[in-house]
Amino acid sequence: MGLFSSAAKVYKPAAEVNLGPDSDEHYISPNVKADAFSLLAPRVAGILVKIFAWVLEMPVIGWMVLSFLKRDNLVNKLVSEAEIPEPPLFTATHSWQDIPEQNVNLTKPGFSPAELVQEAVSCLPAELESALVDPSLGFRRWTIRDFFKAYSSGQTTPAMLRPEDIMRQAEESTLRYQQGAPLSAMDGVLVAVKDEIDCLPYPTTGGTRWLGEARRCVSDASCVAQLRLCGAVMAGKTNMHELGAGTSGINPHHGATRNPHDAGKVSGGSSGGSAAAVCAGLCPVALGADGGGSVRMPAALCGVVGFKPTAGRLSNSGLLPLNWTVGMPGILAGTVEDTLVAYAAIADQSTRTSPLLQQPELNLPLLTCTPSMANIRLAKYAKWFDDSSDDIRSCCSKALQMLRMQYGWETVEVTVPEIEEMRLAHYVTMGSECTASLAKYLDDMDKSEIGWDVRIGLTAYKSFSSRDYLNAQRLRCRQMYFHEKIFEKADAIVTPMTGVTAYPLQDDALSTGELDYINGAALVRYSIAGNFLGLPAITVPVGYDRSGLPIGLQFIGRPWSEATLLHLAYAMQEACTKDYCRKPKVYFDILNKD
Amino acid sequence: MGLFSSAAKVYKPAAEVNLGPDSDEHYISPNVKADAFSLLAPRVAGILVKIFAWVLEMPVIGWMVLSFLKRDNLVNKLVSEAEIPEPPLFTATHSWQDIPEQNVNLTKPGFSPAELVQEAVSCLPAELESALVDPSLGFRRWTIRDFFKAYSSGQTTPAMLRPEDIMRQAEESTLRYQQGAPLSAMDGVLVAVKDEIDCLPYPTTGGTRWLGEARRCVSDASCVAQLRLCGAVMAGKTNMHELGAGTSGINPHHGATRNPHDAGKVSGGSSGGSAAAVCAGLCPVALGADGGGSVRMPAALCGVVGFKPTAGRLSNSGLLPLNWTVGMPGILAGTVEDTLVAYAAIADQSTRTSPLLQQPELNLPLLTCTPSMANIRLAKYAKWFDDSSDDIRSCCSKALQMLRMQYGWETVEVTVPEIEEMRLAHYVTMGSECTASLAKYLDDMDKSEIGWDVRIGLTAYKSFSSRDYLNAQRLRCRQMYFHEKIFEKADAIVTPMTGVTAYPLQDDALSTGELDYINGAALVRYSIAGNFLGLPAITVPVGYDRSGLPIGLQFIGRPWSEATLLHLAYAMQEACTKDYCRKPKVYFDILNKD
Repeated sequence: MGLFSSAAKVYKPAAEVNLGPDSDEHYISPNVKADAFSLLAPRVAGILVKIFAWVLEMPVIGWMVLSFLKRDNLVNKLVSEAEIPEPPLFTATHSWQDIPEQNVNLTKPGFSPAELVQEAVSCLPAELESALVDPSLGFRRWTIRDFFKAYSSGQTTPAMLRPEDIMRQAEESTLRYQQGAPLSAMDGVLVAVKDEIDCLPYPTTGGTRWLGEARRCVSDASCVAQLRLCGAVMAGKTNMHELGAGTSGINPHHGATRNPHDAGKVSGGSSGGSAAAVCAGLCPVALGADGGGSVRMPAALCGVVGFKPTAGRLSNSGLLPLNWTVGMPGILAGTVEDTLVAYAAIADQSTRTSPLLQQPELNLPLLTCTPSMANIRLAKYAKWFDDSSDDIRSCCSKALQMLRMQYGWETVEVTVPEIEEMRLAHYVTMGSECTASLAKYLDDMDKSEIGWDVRIGLTAYKSFSSRDYLNAQRLRCRQMYFHEKIFEKADAIVTPMTGVTAYPLQDDALSTGELDYINGAALVRYSIAGNFLGLPAITVPVGYDRSGLPIGLQFIGRPWSEATLLHLAYAMQEACTKDYCRKPKVYFDILNKD
Repeated sequence: MGLFSSAAKVYKPAAEVNLGPDSDEHYISPNVKADAFSLLAPRVAGILVKIFAWVLEMPVIGWMVLSFLKRDNLVNKLVSEAEIPEPPLFTATHSWQDIPEQNVNLTKPGFSPAELVQEAVSCLPAELESALVDPSLGFRRWTIRDFFKAYSSGQTTPAMLRPEDIMRQAEESTLRYQQGAPLSAMDGVLVAVKDEIDCLPYPTTGGTRWLGEARRCVSDASCVAQLRLCGAVMAGKTNMHELGAGTSGINPHHGATRNPHDAGKVSGGSSGGSAAAVCAGLCPVALGADGGGSVRMPAALCGVVGFKPTAGRLSNSGLLPLNWTVGMPGILAGTVEDTLVAYAAIADQSTRTSPLLQQPELNLPLLTCTPSMANIRLAKYAKWFDDSSDDIRSCCSKALQMLRMQYGWETVEVTVPEIEEMRLAHYVTMGSECTASLAKYLDDMDKSEIGWDVRIGLTAYKSFSSRDYLNAQRLRCRQMYFHEKIFEKADAIVTPMTGVTAYPLQDDALSTGELDYINGAALVRYSIAGNFLGLPAITVPVGYDRSGLPIGLQFIGRPWSEATLLHLAYAMQEACTKDYCRKPKVYFDILNKD
């Protein structure tokens, strides 16, 4: 931001400011020049006011004069270019009328993460065989309970898993099993972590070459810390689209994440590495972050479950602050059961981030009871639902038929207005928040450190005005109203997860990334309400296209209805298991992240 | 906004959108060019991505290319330049821990405005003589109870008041008194209304020449409607600074509002007309709107009480949407008692504007009990408190001494950090919201319709980026934290209301307005926390400077502590009445508004 940016104020954390009479805080009395027009101080009236107005309103000169006046000015130094540790005041909150969910375990507020995991396990169906075993898949992914059973029986130990840092974690876990005192059903279970989430001892690069240095990782993110309290073994960091600013998962610095189903196809993003790791069976569960479908979309492309709870249900503490109002952690897992268990682990209610959030009690769904949920109504907007490839449309329609036939669930036709408007408003929101949040790193850095596609994105982000941002928030208000009304008629909205399946990863994009507007829009087509409105949403695999690439179906729920969503996803998974429409052939390329 | 603005989308109100399957809402599939970079569609990779990044990052050319690409683009048409009826999603909300207030009447949720007025009257001390009768003032303003007593006894009737529209209101009121059934203690009482608030049959000009035409007033604002339910007689509209975008009260279209204490001095603003009307005794109560001290500051300059409750306590319905997160209605009155009664009338809990707001029950203070509130702690930040004229500093310090001597109230020395930062962040916030909110009027209008000083302000407002706005909200988050901590140690923060008393109204400013940075900053110096943090605040007259111009003292309370604040103000008023430090001479020029 030019010549004077070195003078911008760097605020210390609010909690460290002395509010007593002995404070050394500086009191600024604005009796000397201090704002854009104070060069004109002390007082201007009459003809000078007119001349000044004329100049400022001239098309190019006015812009230049205003820029000059603002340059050395207190608004710039204290607000616009300042470094501020705190997030904006207003964050998403939901206080819609509470509608009781069916077939749930009401957890107690004081439960620890490990106790919540045990509660979650007690919600699972009794048989150990995972539901989501696709006989055509060629191998069987281990679930959390597979690990727990093998560790508990001594069939294997966590320490047999892998070398280095995780060895220590694994040995501690092994010792607990030997003592007959595992911390929970997740003790010793491998969890991979997206490189946007703090997880010691690794730097958090956010998919960049520089952020791991510029911003040191000094402690575990809240969700990682809670998994450790359950005994989970952190298996390492997974690759992501640089700064989450893209959907392909192509990363010029750390390599493109390839889709385990076809190494010539993209994994999706930005949590592509986590999706690929779970898909390839490297771990039953991985953490991602979802600011614009970034958990659910790659999960669908890689054929695993992707889950993003209600905004505020999980702590954002320890995630890179790429934005403030659209992103949050999410879970990728091989089965809905494992998704539930991992959700219980990280949904610790003691970590609520904001006093503004009126978060209701945590309900865990009794997955054994699914078929009894006979009154489910699924809202479907046909024009939107059908705006996907032929294979996706027919596969997802067939999935709805299965739900109707097996459970009698009704589909309610609705209109969700302004879908494209919402996507653009979300783009303006995410871009604006990313600019403000990362400014302290980006202002002074060498652009050559950043990938080409992301450089173009950041230039567009920076150009948004406060009016752009506020108008986006007005569209957000409208959409909140529309969805509230739709949820009066339906328990969830059902959509395909993506408009296209994994598309080809072309060599010319490996070092520059790519601007692929059509595919990019198709990938996020159904993701945005989950982020822009903070609604919970889950994707579950429902089949494959003619090339053998996975297809996901998405349920979007009303605020705080995570239990219902997990029920729906589990029922869908069960229906798919009984109905074998599986793929012929599988590739298992290992992800590109070291 | 140029050539293509005519194509910007005009949204209909969300509630009018058909969400059923038969909706005529248009579904936009973004498979054709639709965003800033889609001119490059369908896909760009390799060297072309690099070239595009280089061009966009060039200092002036990049800005021009980006402007060109954005010009005919869906983001602009659907978001940036669209007309959207709804406010932004996120609004101020307070859910701080509820601390019970002392000596209050707990009102019942179902009470009507008239019943609340009667509850409020029962909170007043028994004697009819108003406390705030300054024997040096030369005349005695009538209070609400003065009117009620005169009407009830038949000494006068509402119909004897004035001609035209208010004649009808007055006759209806007279009839009710004749039937022995007045609606409340406010029946027949005159109330003036700031021209920012809808009040039939008048247009709402917002101090402009054009807004009354561009935006028709079709119904009463919520606060006006509630006053009518209590029988109050709407006495007309009062002058204001154009669009509330200034502090002097100088209006080139409708005339400058002069201070009744000295016609050569300003009234302050933007609610200067309401302050002058109450000051001159034209009505006991007037409505104003307070977005940056706009009720409290002119009240102090004119020597009356000015009160702004907690954000969300009163409905903003029917106020011009000059901003969304800092402004709200406020009350100007001759006495604290009348302030309480009018507050009860307009604080109808059925008008809560947002489901996000967790508004606690309405408490009305028992003003008879003030001296028993022995444990009041008043926080004072000395450097800030003392950054005022010598007369104000000594007068307000003396007022604190009176409180200590008469009631034993303790002063706690504190530091309120980042006062000037807060003022600038508030300026960015208000300016940004004003731009977005008024864009639909301002984009296509002839600039010569707007006053010169306001034109300059609007040009600055328009230049704010989304980063500016978001950083301002981050400073807001910090300040909320600071104030929460300070209110752990004190019941209220005490400050002078202004840094200067009413300053000279110079002729060269009458047609152009003026840019007076020093005086402007001094006028709003103590106002901002009430708006930026949504805290309740009240100013009460505590004396005069050596020129006979009034001085106000301000109490800023914790959220929802209106009852405590009114107690404090009443105690201050009582102490002042006992302690005659009054002025020699009074002017009573009538306000300039027709």
